[in-house]
Amino acid sequence: MTPKDDELFDAPTPVMVLVRPQMGENIGAAARAMLNFGCARMRLVAPRDGWPNPKATAMASGASPVLERAGVFDTLPQAIGDCDYVYATTARGRGLTKPVLTPERAMQQARVLAAEGKRVAVLFGPERAGLENEDVARANAIITVPVNPAFYSLNLAQCVLLVAYEYARLGSDTPPEVLAMAGTDFATSIEREKLGDHFEDRLAEAGFFHPPEKAQAMRLNLRNMWARLHLTRADVQTLHGMLRQILRGQGR
Amino acid sequence: MTPKDDELFDAPTPVMVLVRPQMGENIGAAARAMLNFGCARMRLVAPRDGWPNPKATAMASGASPVLERAGVFDTLPQAIGDCDYVYATTARGRGLTKPVLTPERAMQQARVLAAEGKRVAVLFGPERAGLENEDVARANAIITVPVNPAFYSLNLAQCVLLVAYEYARLGSDTPPEVLAMAGTDFATSIEREKLGDHFEDRLAEAGFFHPPEKAQAMRLNLRNMWARLHLTRADVQTLHGMLRQILRGQGR
Repeated sequence: MTPKDDELFDAPTPVMVLVRPQMGENIGAAARAMLNFGCARMRLVAPRDGWPNPKATAMASGASPVLERAGVFDTLPQAIGDCDYVYATTARGRGLTKPVLTPERAMQQARVLAAEGKRVAVLFGPERAGLENEDVARANAIITVPVNPAFYSLNLAQCVLLVAYEYARLGSDTPPEVLAMAGTDFATSIEREKLGDHFEDRLAEAGFFHPPEKAQAMRLNLRNMWARLHLTRADVQTLHGMLRQILRGQGR
Repeated sequence: MTPKDDELFDAPTPVMVLVRPQMGENIGAAARAMLNFGCARMRLVAPRDGWPNPKATAMASGASPVLERAGVFDTLPQAIGDCDYVYATTARGRGLTKPVLTPERAMQQARVLAAEGKRVAVLFGPERAGLENEDVARANAIITVPVNPAFYSLNLAQCVLLVAYEYARLGSDTPPEVLAMAGTDFATSIEREKLGDHFEDRLAEAGFFHPPEKAQAMRLNLRNMWARLHLTRADVQTLHGMLRQILRGQGR
């Protein structure tokens, strides 16, 4: 374990509780899904094939530290005994009166609770049948992913993935949109101006700005285009060169 | 095909373009991931094992209509020829100057474009290596899922799943939080009042509201609790019965 790992496991991310998971492969895939979005705290309730499970480890690959530190419990009440707020993921309506939340809203709440020092858990049921009513009754609220009602096929790891994704997304400092610089410089204003002048002069000579009453608007549109294109310095050189070469070719 | 299917395929959801996909199973899994969130328009560029692919069909199961209507193209330019705006999904930074967006921001844009009648495409690369720079150069913008930088393991279908999920989420009319009624009625105010009275009377007789200077605040807290609990009519009957039975038991 590296110090970085410790930081990951100490982060107050939701505890993902796999209740009576069946296939080791799915436990491993869930660990990967979690770690993709910085969630490392896993608990297992009565895994069908015992624990540790070599198939889980093989599938987890780089996410095996999640499995190594996973808590294993005989019953759900033991697994969530120290948790302050518990969500149950379930696709179907239940005969239980309880709030039903989107993953987004639930993870908004989870972030607020975590900031208050509360421990949040999310329950995921066995692959085939999902959580029993017995399990759901122990949760404070239900998470239901709003899927196409005519087609629902999310598997265990995909459900874990969406919950972990929402938790990460809502706390992410990734800017929603950046312009990748890719090691190159954008053209300065003066370079853009000179490029604009070059094209404008040659185009004027070629009789492009016609009829005269539209010339000013056409020039303005061109200036605006150069500014809008996010040209790099290399782009500007390319465009100068293209224009020169075309005129040279014509002159022949 | 049912009329409902036609509606699904006519919806202006993003066209999901799998570029040189390798495993049939992953094409099928991508179709399922799409259909979970109401996206049905798939295109394939030069699938490695030809088309149709029985392994894709087997994996797609209920999502096989997505595969049956998928367009198949030899080259990427052919596949996106009629698309107005193209996103390329890629994990790594590229030597290409281009906007890089989160899935959320990209799908916000995609909804605006779709509302204007524009056709949006999202490109997904082959399983092993992802999109080539040749492919990315043909896109208007890049989508990068903000994952844990120390661990990235999203597979093809998971990447499709997250993009389709974001598209659906941003247009969803699912309320972020509802209280499931589960076929039962909530208690009316008068029923809650009577329950409050019942408990208050019996608790007063038992000397619960002590010391006297705190009695009023204690009564208020109790009233507030009953109101806050979202009790059903059945809950109210259960609580009346519990109180009566406890007092009966004590009287013996």
